[in-house]
Amino acid sequence: MMNIITTIDELQKVIKEMKTQNKQIGFVPTMGYLHEGHRALMKKAREENDVVVLSIFVNPLQFGPNEDLESYPRDFVRDQDAASAEGVDIIFYPTPAEMYPEELSVTIQVRKRTDALCGASRPGHFDGVATVLTKLFHLVQPDRAYFGKKDAQQAAVVEGLVKDFNFPLQVVPVDTVREPDGLAKSSRNVYLSEKERKEAPALYRSLQLGEELIDSGETNPETVISAIKDKILTETSGEIDYVNLLSYPNLENMDTIQGTCIIALAVKFSKARLIDNIILTREQEEA
Amino acid sequence: MMNIITTIDELQKVIKEMKTQNKQIGFVPTMGYLHEGHRALMKKAREENDVVVLSIFVNPLQFGPNEDLESYPRDFVRDQDAASAEGVDIIFYPTPAEMYPEELSVTIQVRKRTDALCGASRPGHFDGVATVLTKLFHLVQPDRAYFGKKDAQQAAVVEGLVKDFNFPLQVVPVDTVREPDGLAKSSRNVYLSEKERKEAPALYRSLQLGEELIDSGETNPETVISAIKDKILTETSGEIDYVNLLSYPNLENMDTIQGTCIIALAVKFSKARLIDNIILTREQEEA
Repeated sequence: MMNIITTIDELQKVIKEMKTQNKQIGFVPTMGYLHEGHRALMKKAREENDVVVLSIFVNPLQFGPNEDLESYPRDFVRDQDAASAEGVDIIFYPTPAEMYPEELSVTIQVRKRTDALCGASRPGHFDGVATVLTKLFHLVQPDRAYFGKKDAQQAAVVEGLVKDFNFPLQVVPVDTVREPDGLAKSSRNVYLSEKERKEAPALYRSLQLGEELIDSGETNPETVISAIKDKILTETSGEIDYVNLLSYPNLENMDTIQGTCIIALAVKFSKARLIDNIILTREQEEA
Repeated sequence: MMNIITTIDELQKVIKEMKTQNKQIGFVPTMGYLHEGHRALMKKAREENDVVVLSIFVNPLQFGPNEDLESYPRDFVRDQDAASAEGVDIIFYPTPAEMYPEELSVTIQVRKRTDALCGASRPGHFDGVATVLTKLFHLVQPDRAYFGKKDAQQAAVVEGLVKDFNFPLQVVPVDTVREPDGLAKSSRNVYLSEKERKEAPALYRSLQLGEELIDSGETNPETVISAIKDKILTETSGEIDYVNLLSYPNLENMDTIQGTCIIALAVKFSKARLIDNIILTREQEEA
C-alpha cells in the first residue's frame, strides 16, 4: 500500500519509526509530472533500499520572477499511477504553505558550479534547489538520494551540497534513459518534426565521437569541441546553443583534458531545445 | 572511557554504529576553553541522553577580518579534564583543514535575527555559525543540541536554523549559570575591580525589576527600559552599551509587550563589558 503524506508532522512520525527499525531509505525528489527519467530513478531506488520515498513539490524558490511557476505542468493522478507501478512506498506531497509557513530566516547560497551550462541564465535557481533539498533531506533522512545525469549541473550542485555540508547520505547519479537510437528521452522530443527526429540521435553520436577522441589520446578541449560541433552541423539542421567540455563535478574550464570531465551540449531545433551530456574519466598517465 | 576523535571518517563510523543501536545522542558544540557555562550544557546533555558528544572547534568562518582568530584562547588539556568530569563520551576535535578541505561550494546566509543586540557589529558572524553547525549536526546526528541562554542571540539564530531547515533534532536552551548574588558567570568577571564586582549584580537585579514591571501589567517597552537604565546608572559605575526589549526568538521591536520576549543588556565597566538577559512570556489576556 502506497502512503500519500501531505504534512510534515505525519512524515516525521513515519520516518522516525523507519529509522528506529534501521530501514534503508531511498529518496527521489521531483517536481512531479513524472516521465521515464523519473521512473529510472524510482526503479534504481527500489532495487537498493527497503523503503522508497518520492517527493512531489513544485518548489517556488527555484523559479525566477520571469519563469512561470503557475503554468508548470502538474498531474498528480497520473503521477500516483507511475509511482505505484514502480513500487514507491511513500509519496510526500506537501503544499507550498506546509514547506514555507513563513519567510525563511536562513537560506543557502550556491557559490560554485552555477554559472556554467544552463545555470548562467537562471540566477538564484540553484539556491532555491539547494534550500528545498536541505529541507527534504532533513525530513526524509534518506540513506541514498537519486538524481538523473541528464541534468548534470543539478547533479553536480547536489554533490557539492552533500559533500560540503557532510549530509549523512549518498548521492546516486542515474544514467540518462535513451531511445534505441541513442536520443536522450525527453518530454520535449514530441515537438521535433519528423525530419528533426531522424537527425536528433546525432547529438549523442557527436558526444560519443568526443569520448573516442579523448580515449585515443586527445588532450586539447578545443579540438574535441570543434569535432563535435562539426558533426552536429553536418548531420542536423539544429542551431548550436553551446558545446562545453568542463571538469566534473566542479564544472570549470580546463586547459588540458584530465580526470573526470563532462561534455555537455544544447541544440535548438525549430520547436524544441534539446540537451545531452556524457561524463567520462581520463585515467591519469603513470608518472 | 572518553573517545577523542579528530577525523570525519572516524566520527561518521562511530555515529553510524550508535544510530543503528538507537542510542539517543546529546550534542554540545563549543569553541573550547570550557567554563562553567559549558559545564552546565554538558551536565544537562548527560542527564537526557545515552551518549554525549562535545565538539571543540575554533571555527574560522565566524571570525571577521578584524577579529583575532589566532589569539582566541585554547587549552585542550584542561578541556579534556572538564569533559571527562562531566561524563562526555566523545570529544570531536577536528582541524580547520579537516572541516574545510577546500573552499565551500555552498554557504548559509542568516537573514533574520542578526542585526539586533551584539550581532549588528559582526556582519557575517552568524552565517559562519550557521554553516559550521549545519556540518556538525550532519556529522553528529544528535537528537538534542544544547545552547546557553546567556548568548541569547545565538540561541535564537540556531532555533531559526533548525526550524526553517527542518533539522531532525531538538534545540535545548540551558539557563544562564549565576553566582550566588545573581551575577552571570563569565570569564570576563575577573577583569572587574573590587568595587565593580560589588556593583555588577545590579545588572541582573535590573532585569528582574523589568520582569516585575511586566508581571504587574506594564505593556510599554520604553517604560520598562527606562526603569532598567535608571537602576543600572544609580547602582553601578558602568556605562550602558544597550538595554533592549525585543520579541523572542524573532528579536524584533515591539510596540506593546506581548508573547515571549527578551530583555537584554550590555554594560561596559573599566576593563570588562558584561552582557546578561532574561527571557519571559507575558500570558495573553483572555478575550
